[in-house]
Amino acid sequence: MSIMEAKVIKGGGITSAQGFQAAGVACGIKPRGEKDMALIVSDVPAEVAGTFTTNVVKAAPVKVSMQHIRNGKVRGVIINSGCANACTGVGGISDAKEMIQHLANKSKTKPREWLVCSTGRIGSRLPMPQVRKGIEKSIAKLKADNGVEAAKAIMTTDTRRKEFAMRFKIGGRKVTIGGMAKGAGMIHPNMATMLCFITTDACIDKPALQSCVDDAVEHSFNRISVDGDTSTNDSVIVMANGKSGTNLLKSYHPQFGLFKKTLTHVMRKLARMIVEDGEGITRVVDVVVKGAARVQDAKAVALAVAKSELVKTAWTGGDPNWGRIMCAIGYSGARVREEMIEIYYDGLLAVVNGQPSKTPLVKLRKVVGKPKFTITIHLHLGVGEYSILTTDLTEEYVRINKGE
Amino acid sequence: MSIMEAKVIKGGGITSAQGFQAAGVACGIKPRGEKDMALIVSDVPAEVAGTFTTNVVKAAPVKVSMQHIRNGKVRGVIINSGCANACTGVGGISDAKEMIQHLANKSKTKPREWLVCSTGRIGSRLPMPQVRKGIEKSIAKLKADNGVEAAKAIMTTDTRRKEFAMRFKIGGRKVTIGGMAKGAGMIHPNMATMLCFITTDACIDKPALQSCVDDAVEHSFNRISVDGDTSTNDSVIVMANGKSGTNLLKSYHPQFGLFKKTLTHVMRKLARMIVEDGEGITRVVDVVVKGAARVQDAKAVALAVAKSELVKTAWTGGDPNWGRIMCAIGYSGARVREEMIEIYYDGLLAVVNGQPSKTPLVKLRKVVGKPKFTITIHLHLGVGEYSILTTDLTEEYVRINKGE
Repeated sequence: MSIMEAKVIKGGGITSAQGFQAAGVACGIKPRGEKDMALIVSDVPAEVAGTFTTNVVKAAPVKVSMQHIRNGKVRGVIINSGCANACTGVGGISDAKEMIQHLANKSKTKPREWLVCSTGRIGSRLPMPQVRKGIEKSIAKLKADNGVEAAKAIMTTDTRRKEFAMRFKIGGRKVTIGGMAKGAGMIHPNMATMLCFITTDACIDKPALQSCVDDAVEHSFNRISVDGDTSTNDSVIVMANGKSGTNLLKSYHPQFGLFKKTLTHVMRKLARMIVEDGEGITRVVDVVVKGAARVQDAKAVALAVAKSELVKTAWTGGDPNWGRIMCAIGYSGARVREEMIEIYYDGLLAVVNGQPSKTPLVKLRKVVGKPKFTITIHLHLGVGEYSILTTDLTEEYVRINKGE
Repeated sequence: MSIMEAKVIKGGGITSAQGFQAAGVACGIKPRGEKDMALIVSDVPAEVAGTFTTNVVKAAPVKVSMQHIRNGKVRGVIINSGCANACTGVGGISDAKEMIQHLANKSKTKPREWLVCSTGRIGSRLPMPQVRKGIEKSIAKLKADNGVEAAKAIMTTDTRRKEFAMRFKIGGRKVTIGGMAKGAGMIHPNMATMLCFITTDACIDKPALQSCVDDAVEHSFNRISVDGDTSTNDSVIVMANGKSGTNLLKSYHPQFGLFKKTLTHVMRKLARMIVEDGEGITRVVDVVVKGAARVQDAKAVALAVAKSELVKTAWTGGDPNWGRIMCAIGYSGARVREEMIEIYYDGLLAVVNGQPSKTPLVKLRKVVGKPKFTITIHLHLGVGEYSILTTDLTEEYVRINKGE
């Protein structure tokens, strides 16, 4: 992707945009004293747009935030890690509401101006005394250069924090889009235990912002897969507070496209960071499908390959094993013709007309030995395309997830 | 299942029924001199019915056998392990045809009377000189008590052979149904690298036989999942040679039900053996879904749970983690209401109204510690039911499948 006009802000994150503050504190939800609560606040009410998990079993904070996001402008988001507050029934809903209520009381704002997110293990109630203390502590620690602390506080099985920010100009004024994310497992299209928060000082109205967010999510977080599990808590929340002082962005402005492109780029970067931090992974693989009769077919093939346990374990072993890819293409449900299929490993032809190419196996093995590579599948039936970013499946993944 | 009228034949298999012979030999397809070719022959032409992989990428022998099975009666099946003859193009088709042609020449029969199956790695051509010698050797070794040798010869990653047979009476005459199967990975509904051969001396016509086979497969091999991958080579082939000497079985005969029930039972036993021999597994789990609004919803939930990497790795660690099951139910696409869901572990209530029950975790942990247990999910929305037999996902599975 080339966004000549937008520049990466080194070390940028959730507090890079003007008029945002953040905090990240430890309040005792996690057992070992790690940071487990983050607060993001805009100095002035901000437009907000979001996307939430498609899982029918939604965590309590997701239900509450989905309602509040419709209200209008917000002041910020309170987030805890270490407990998902999912499958917690009516009690969980009232805990999520109380988080917001307590925050509103202590910051002299209205509850309707706040969103709430949780991530962690499913099925436990939040320890509310600790949570209340954490909220007070977070308010006290709010600072305009505290992005790193907030990014740390939302981590669960993540091994590193995920932050990214870019800046561009509209009419001589600087506009910044920055964000942070968490996620390492339970990652699959339509969101996973994946939280992403983005702040911008752009001046944009709610419908335009929501349409940009929908589009950016479709091309970033909906195109990654680690283990095929879509979680109960996924949320992407974008706040725009207008502090850059530009004119209101409208969809017919030439700068609108730049804003959208940059937002998508920021989300794609954060999505890739999640995949690269996938639990126990040793390979990051772009699965690109071309030439499908329809886009849905390309998507079905990409998903089948990206989800196949056999394909993913072969990569772990550095084994090209395109036979397993052919097999996954065959059961994907997509319209395919075996004798038309071509498969490339980083551009090297492995399969042609559904049969092995003349490329020496040792060359293909070299590609699959690398930590990052691209599998391109050409179906030669039409112009439908789709791509997805996935990982291998390792013994370490099993070790991490087999629990206590 | 209670089939009072049918009895298990101890040590029974593919040659238990009257008028069938078999052989299992080593001919050099596998590198280390293991058995890699099996032949099953009926003394007289037999009615035949089959089910083949739904994968669009079908191996050459599958294509050839699907055609031959329509011809009418057959004499038997030639099977090789060590090479799947899949993704081998026109050359692969001609190899499969030559296997049959050579067998027909050497046994003075017609090619149209034979079926052919292959299993092993995808993408390599068969070593035809060895295959031809193997066919001759197989014919020479044919014997009426050679089931064990044949069952050994079709194994690939299997750690043990899979045989089962039952006998019942019709009008004072003994009727036998026996079979053998192979499969340990790439196992998923709609067939996997899963081969099953069944012989019976029942007297039954082709349409009745095919309908029994379809039904029995739906309730056996289509209800098991190890890794969610449906292979290119799956085949279930049932031959009935009428040697029991009973009257022709018609669907309105009371004994017809008994035949169908016994055939289903034999297939269910063989299917369970495949799951129990699943690559690297330590748990065999019945996932039973009840109370769905529609059967499709029950199936969607059962499949989502049985395929979830997170659910399966939790089992490996002996962790009940019903939260991951709730999560999988939620993204299954089925109609569910979180607050109506109940989950039982071997009858112990773990989740009620979508929230944790009062059952102590230590009790649930005891269940998940066992090598076999049942997860029952009650959706309380209707009467739709579905069940599936699955396994855990272990580090050993990854080790086995990560290839060279």
